[in-house]
Amino acid sequence: MNCTKCKTKAAIKIPRHHAAFCRGCFTNFVHDQVARAIKSETMFGKDDRILVAVSGGKDSLALWNILLKLGYKADGFYVDLGIGGYSERSHTMVRQFADTIGVPSGAVLHTHTVEREEGAGIKELAQLVHRPTCSTCGTIKRYQFNRAAVVQEYDVMATGHNLDDEAARLLGNVLHWQEDYLDKQGPTLPASVDGFAKKVKPLYRLSERELAAYCVVNNIQYIVDECPMAQGARTLLYKEVLNRLETESPGTKQYFYWGFLEKQRKKRASSEGMLERDQALLHPCSACGQPTTAEMCSYCKLMARAKREVSG
Amino acid sequence: MNCTKCKTKAAIKIPRHHAAFCRGCFTNFVHDQVARAIKSETMFGKDDRILVAVSGGKDSLALWNILLKLGYKADGFYVDLGIGGYSERSHTMVRQFADTIGVPSGAVLHTHTVEREEGAGIKELAQLVHRPTCSTCGTIKRYQFNRAAVVQEYDVMATGHNLDDEAARLLGNVLHWQEDYLDKQGPTLPASVDGFAKKVKPLYRLSERELAAYCVVNNIQYIVDECPMAQGARTLLYKEVLNRLETESPGTKQYFYWGFLEKQRKKRASSEGMLERDQALLHPCSACGQPTTAEMCSYCKLMARAKREVSG
Repeated sequence: MNCTKCKTKAAIKIPRHHAAFCRGCFTNFVHDQVARAIKSETMFGKDDRILVAVSGGKDSLALWNILLKLGYKADGFYVDLGIGGYSERSHTMVRQFADTIGVPSGAVLHTHTVEREEGAGIKELAQLVHRPTCSTCGTIKRYQFNRAAVVQEYDVMATGHNLDDEAARLLGNVLHWQEDYLDKQGPTLPASVDGFAKKVKPLYRLSERELAAYCVVNNIQYIVDECPMAQGARTLLYKEVLNRLETESPGTKQYFYWGFLEKQRKKRASSEGMLERDQALLHPCSACGQPTTAEMCSYCKLMARAKREVSG
Repeated sequence: MNCTKCKTKAAIKIPRHHAAFCRGCFTNFVHDQVARAIKSETMFGKDDRILVAVSGGKDSLALWNILLKLGYKADGFYVDLGIGGYSERSHTMVRQFADTIGVPSGAVLHTHTVEREEGAGIKELAQLVHRPTCSTCGTIKRYQFNRAAVVQEYDVMATGHNLDDEAARLLGNVLHWQEDYLDKQGPTLPASVDGFAKKVKPLYRLSERELAAYCVVNNIQYIVDECPMAQGARTLLYKEVLNRLETESPGTKQYFYWGFLEKQRKKRASSEGMLERDQALLHPCSACGQPTTAEMCSYCKLMARAKREVSG
């Protein structure tokens, strides 16, 4: 099979686009998909300062790389969760990328160490507050990532969620008809109020498989293993099921997720904006001042509970 | 494991209801689910005359049996598609049920023979009009079933669509965000205009597996093989995928479909009714007088084309 663009020998097939690419044209294809995502979802411009959440996995390192290659001002933000060897290995991958590609391109790597800042590793914190590790981790990462972006005056926060992530999340929300979550599931969430940074997902047009191939083709080293605390079997099951549908009928994931975005766009155009609703619901957290719908935000509640457990 | 109701030895487990039943209590459970469907979706009453579409398969024969056992006035309508041995075997099953259970309960079996009425078997007709067999078959069955109900003044038409059928159809519509089809997918479609009978699906609360078990427990003989013209791999694929999700998390199908119905109910309450929209769009077919959105209805178009092909 030959490359759809330059007709030399193809290295990767993209069935849902009825295309195949050589290594060079594949890299251009990936960059082009991200450029289209940034433009069509009005994510950011060349003057904006972007903070990229990097975990050491393929998606986030690919994202940081692509943004730098496209000429954006993108710094990295890494959260060291304190999960023994896994955190050490992922931190090494992130540092290695920052040293060899990030810093030479003028980018900075910020690191937040949970054991130092929150006083204990993620596993211990979750046990202290009697909550699942993944939801504890989510609360801390979302909070600290947003805080870093706001305090250091970044214009936008970017995460490495890909098409598979978004389609799986959409399938879960649709299977349970989670209307509220459905409303908030888009590649661009505006900075609805002061204290909440704008959030974007520039990889939503690219699949997991394509991002893994991008890292291999571009010599980006990443941590392959999933977090040992496990992402939750549910997401993996949804991905498996979507892959089954994709194999039978290439393009299923993209039609599913993009079709949803199209539908949301129409809906939004004809209804009260999320922005106004959010502004009406949110006010500053009584402890830290960040916006929340409750009296105290979920991060401060979590940390207060952990402190009570330690002292009690 | 013991029966959830009477504590004797259980014969069938229903994981999504966290229940198990002996044969007698299982039959009551099935009848109860149908009674709840009829009531909650205001399908019909004891005085209404119901026409049940029977194919000879487990779902439609179970439905006819359940309606008679619950004391409803339900007649059967069978379409002989003229698909060789398959049609012969399914016709035998339907006749056998009608003779042993239907007629003794005061019910009548109507038969429409495609080869006689439309002049050729379904396969030949599809070839004549250059359309897939399944869609040709659907057009003819829907048309003749509705015509029989209207001409013979039945109050409502009932089909044997079960939870698996409806969940698979919903998944297909959601994956492609078919808004129009989504709007029309419910267990009760009102008789929107003169010439369209009301349509109901009283089995929407029961799974394929439960209906097969119901037939076995109640000695109802049915044709096991799928139609040789094939239902379409797509529906089977959606069912497979939903079964995979159901195994991991019992109740997925029911939450998915019932949750959808709940959502539609809320939506309908707050928006213009389907009824008014339909009435605005429909008018009598120029050939047969049945309601259609086009100048000539799809059945008459199909038959006109077949006649042209034969004479041309």
